[in-house]
This record gives sequence, structure tokens and C-alpha cells, in this order.
Amino acid sequence: MSKNIQVLIDSLPSGKLQSTNYRLQESAVPLPGADEVLVKTTAVAITAGTRAGLQGSASYAGAPQAGIVMNGTGVGEVVASNVERFAVGAKVLAPTGWQTYSVHEAKALSLIDPAHEPVHYLGALGINGLTAYFGLLDVGQAAAGDTVMVSAAAGSVGHLVGQIAKIKGARVVGVCGDDAKAKVLTGDLGFDLAVNYKDANFRQSLKEATPDGVDVYFDNTGGMILGSALFRMNVGGRIACCGVVSQYDTASPEPGPKGIPGLLINKRIHMRGFLVFDFADRYAQARAELSGWLASGELQNLTDEVQGLEAAPEAFVDLLSGGNIGTRIVRVS
Amino acid sequence: MSKNIQVLIDSLPSGKLQSTNYRLQESAVPLPGADEVLVKTTAVAITAGTRAGLQGSASYAGAPQAGIVMNGTGVGEVVASNVERFAVGAKVLAPTGWQTYSVHEAKALSLIDPAHEPVHYLGALGINGLTAYFGLLDVGQAAAGDTVMVSAAAGSVGHLVGQIAKIKGARVVGVCGDDAKAKVLTGDLGFDLAVNYKDANFRQSLKEATPDGVDVYFDNTGGMILGSALFRMNVGGRIACCGVVSQYDTASPEPGPKGIPGLLINKRIHMRGFLVFDFADRYAQARAELSGWLASGELQNLTDEVQGLEAAPEAFVDLLSGGNIGTRIVRVS
Repeated sequence: MSKNIQVLIDSLPSGKLQSTNYRLQESAVPLPGADEVLVKTTAVAITAGTRAGLQGSASYAGAPQAGIVMNGTGVGEVVASNVERFAVGAKVLAPTGWQTYSVHEAKALSLIDPAHEPVHYLGALGINGLTAYFGLLDVGQAAAGDTVMVSAAAGSVGHLVGQIAKIKGARVVGVCGDDAKAKVLTGDLGFDLAVNYKDANFRQSLKEATPDGVDVYFDNTGGMILGSALFRMNVGGRIACCGVVSQYDTASPEPGPKGIPGLLINKRIHMRGFLVFDFADRYAQARAELSGWLASGELQNLTDEVQGLEAAPEAFVDLLSGGNIGTRIVRVS
Repeated sequence: MSKNIQVLIDSLPSGKLQSTNYRLQESAVPLPGADEVLVKTTAVAITAGTRAGLQGSASYAGAPQAGIVMNGTGVGEVVASNVERFAVGAKVLAPTGWQTYSVHEAKALSLIDPAHEPVHYLGALGINGLTAYFGLLDVGQAAAGDTVMVSAAAGSVGHLVGQIAKIKGARVVGVCGDDAKAKVLTGDLGFDLAVNYKDANFRQSLKEATPDGVDVYFDNTGGMILGSALFRMNVGGRIACCGVVSQYDTASPEPGPKGIPGLLINKRIHMRGFLVFDFADRYAQARAELSGWLASGELQNLTDEVQGLEAAPEAFVDLLSGGNIGTRIVRVS
């Protein structure tokens, strides 16, 4: 084994995140202690949600701070182990962070089913897929015949939400930030329509794209798109609040949408925030269904890969301005 | 019969409502046609929600407009009838509007149980009581041991919400706009605490009043109080969105609270708007329970009376700035 290459948080961002908020470091490869496992990272996912943790105001233990390795979920291979269940050579899902080697207790690791591509565990079979699944079907209560709207529709969660909604018989309208993404959504992934929120006539386009209104809005963005969705919601509609990507990359979030709570009342809307971890006791069931759709080709797991940890900071900054299509992954080895 | 005294909308308000937006008119007492009933108004309720209808932008048929009688729910007595079920002398609940006489089809009327004070049908046994009941227990899912927070707590709905929550074994914190109201809530109605939102240290007082957080927030106001509630909500808390009184009396509503959707996600909050009419098939059950509580003295129906229709416009303007304690009623005859 060589050195452990690590990407550290050098400073917390005061406004928009910059790649200079990070620095590379080489250190010795750590050794696993009793009941621990050493994992060599194969790939790590870059996700918008981790930007929220960089505000420095989070009060819970373990919030990211300057000087520590950037957090993130990865897939890797066990290279040394003091835990029987995780033999050397096993493929695992782990909170590796942005580094080539990391040591974990067994409870932090999940074994990867050899029937699947490991990187699927950073996408459709991982937190993204589970988030899309439970948010759409449990929180949003989407059903056949519904019109489902999803924001950040070409993102790591959004592109899965739309496909699952199609599998379940819904009509799907995706909201994204450029026309190339829109083409992927409707051309490759089977969305019925995609609308670009940066267009000057976005509200009108959204209206035309949802002639029967919206029954379920899967919200990854908050902000202006949430505000626009409120006007398209049907009576009794559901809003599944999953993320607030429009507000992560700033030190001063915007006010909330004007229609809250007025439009929630007039339209008797259910709006519910969720974290996927609350559904942990049903992951196995959801993974079984997601695996089946992947195997049948009904569900496509889009990844958007960059090479090498040294590219991770730029890839993260770019992702926050909407540069990715599908789940952005950094190939490490 | 003499004349029909009517309060007409003279002009829709362009900013805050003024009593000069109304004018009095005398006209002939109408005659009931086939299958119609003539009602003489005893009292009419003044409610903040009707202010929302005066924006002039409502697109549904029947939205209030200049030149028509101001809308409102009243109680009265049948004085002429072509409907067997509503005999002369019967007491009824009716959409009388602000006038002394009005003609109705049978389906618009409800008979008042002679066991109760008619004005209770404008309060605890009417729309206010039903709204409090279903909003708190169905939408908010309040249960024994919960901390329940309610805004506009001394208002027509709020004062009932807090009392029902106490009956069900919850701890109740009311938010109101002056200390006299706070004294009524805690002194007369059994609220555990009341907090004045106009105090400079409101947020701190609310925090101290809810040491175990808030499980159910019954929101009558929206705006800043909703924003403050979000910070006190517990994980898995429920927000029942009933009204937006902070935003009714203006042509330009404020933006929504900053914590939406971010705090909804972190705390997995269910936020749901409702209209009481959606629970119409269960009114009888709710009225039976509310009647029982009134009879036992567990529930007090506070009314705040003014005399005569000519006083109604001023009473409405005053109500919108928080002048009432309990349900404001105009005694007509």
C-alpha cells in the first residue's frame, strides 16, 4: 500500500463554495483496530445535500469543519479486516469520505450484492434510489394516473423519481436547468415532458406542461420552483420535501414561497419533509424492487463520472451550479 | 315587517380594509318563492377569513364584489316559509349576510337544536367549533401528552382549539397579541401558557414556553408566527394550516417563512392545509362531542358582541387588527 490521499476541508465557505475551500493531503494508510475494517475506495458520490453541512452552524456532533476529511458515501473493497463478515476482497458501501483508504466499524458498512455493479450502490440501489422510492411512493403517495412533477429532475435523486413514477403509471414532468438535460429526461429516461426553470417563460411552460394540474410534487429544490409548483397543485395534492438545493450554496437563504400557507389551505395540500433514514426498516424491500427494475431495464441508473480525488472539489462546485446529469461519482481506483 | 337593513360592499379595499368600504342601504323585505324560506337575522358572525374574499382577484363565482351585501353566517328565525321542514318560528343557521332579512333555499339552512343557545351555532357548534375540532384532532393528530401551540389563540377558532386540546390531555401554549387576551386564555380558559407575539422577546418567550418543543401547531396566522413555530417543532410534528390572518388585510402578502422547506425536511414535519367543509360527513359526530363539552362546562364558547348592523364595518376593521376576544358577533335583533 502506498499513501492515503485525502481531500480536506481547508476552510468553510463564506458565500458560494469554491474549490479552494479544499486541499489535498497525503498521509499514512491507517491500520484497522480490533473489530475494524480497512476499505480502499473505488468511487465516491458527490451530493448536493452535503453542501448544507458546510454552513458551520450545525450544532450536532460530527458536523463538517475545517481540517477534517470531506464527508461522502463511497464504494470500495476490503483490504484488511478484523471482522469475519467483511473478508478481504469483499465489496462494500461505506462512509469513506473523500480519501483512498478509510477504517470503519462493521456497523458502518453494507455488503454489496455481487450481482450488481458496485456504483449502483451510489445510485439506484443506494441512498439516492431509496430516497426516490420512499419519497415518491410513501410520502408523495403517487399512483397510476397521477401527474408527478419533480425538480432537479436530472439530478441524482430526480432522475430516479421520474422513472419510478413512470413505472408506476404516472405522467411525469421534470424541471431542470438546461435543454441538454431536458433532452436526456424525455429522450432517454421516458419523462413525458421536461421544463427548463431558467427560461423566462418558465411559469407559463409549467402551466402548459401540467394541463390537469399536479398531484404529487417531489421537491428537491425549494425556492422559486416550489413557489411555482404551489400554483399548479391540485386539491388534495402532496408535496414530498426532499431537498433544498436552491438554498444550499449561500450563506443567506431566500424567504420561503409566498403561497405558504395560503395555497396549502385553499388546495388542502399535504406537505411533508422526510429523511430516508426514517424508512431504514424497509430498505431491503425497496432494494429488491429497485433491483428488479434495474435488471429488467425499466430503470436506468445514470452516472456522471469524474476521475481522481484531486478533481473532486471542482466537481462539487460544478454540481452545485447544476453541472451533473445523474449521480456524480468520483472514480478513485 | 319593516324594511330590510343591509350592509353593502361599497368598494373593494385597495390596502387595509376601512369601514368606508361599506355602506348601509334600506330595501324592501324580500318574499320567499316556491321552496324558499324568509329568515330574520338575530345575529351574524364577523370572521377574519371573509377578508380574504375581498381581494377582488378570486376567480370563483360568487366572490364578493362591490355592490352586493357583505357575506357572513348568521342565526335567525323563520318568519315566512314555503318549506315544510322550516316552520315559522324555527331557529336556523343560515348564510344571512349582513342584513336583517334574507331568503334561502332549504339546503342552505340548518335547524338549531333548541337545547342550545342559538349563538353557539356561530361559535362552538358552528364552523368555528368544527374547524377547531377537525383541524386539531384529524389534521393535527393531537393526543394526550402533546404540546399544542395555537396562534390567534384568543380568536374565534383559536380559543376553542386550546380548550379542546386541554380536554384531550395536551399541554397548550397560545399565541396572541395582547396581555389582556393572554390573561383570558390562562385565567379563564385553562391554557397552560400564553405568549404575546408583539413583545420584542417573543421568540425567546416562545422557546421558554415550549421546553419540550411543539408536537402540533395549529396555525391561524401564517407569517412570522408560523416562521417562529417552525423552530420549535419536534421531529415528526404536525402543522395544521387553518388560516392566514396575518396576510388577509393587505394587497401585497409577505413572502413565506424562511424555514420552508428546509426545516420541514430536517424535522420531518407534516404540514397540511384544510377546509372544514371536507369533513362535512362527520359534522354530526363532532357536534355531539362539542355539545357534551359545552353542557359539562369543559368547553366555553366566548363571544364578543357588538350591537346593530351599522356597527358591523367598524367591528370588522377592529377584528382584523385583533380587537376581539372569542367569536365576534353582531346582534341584529
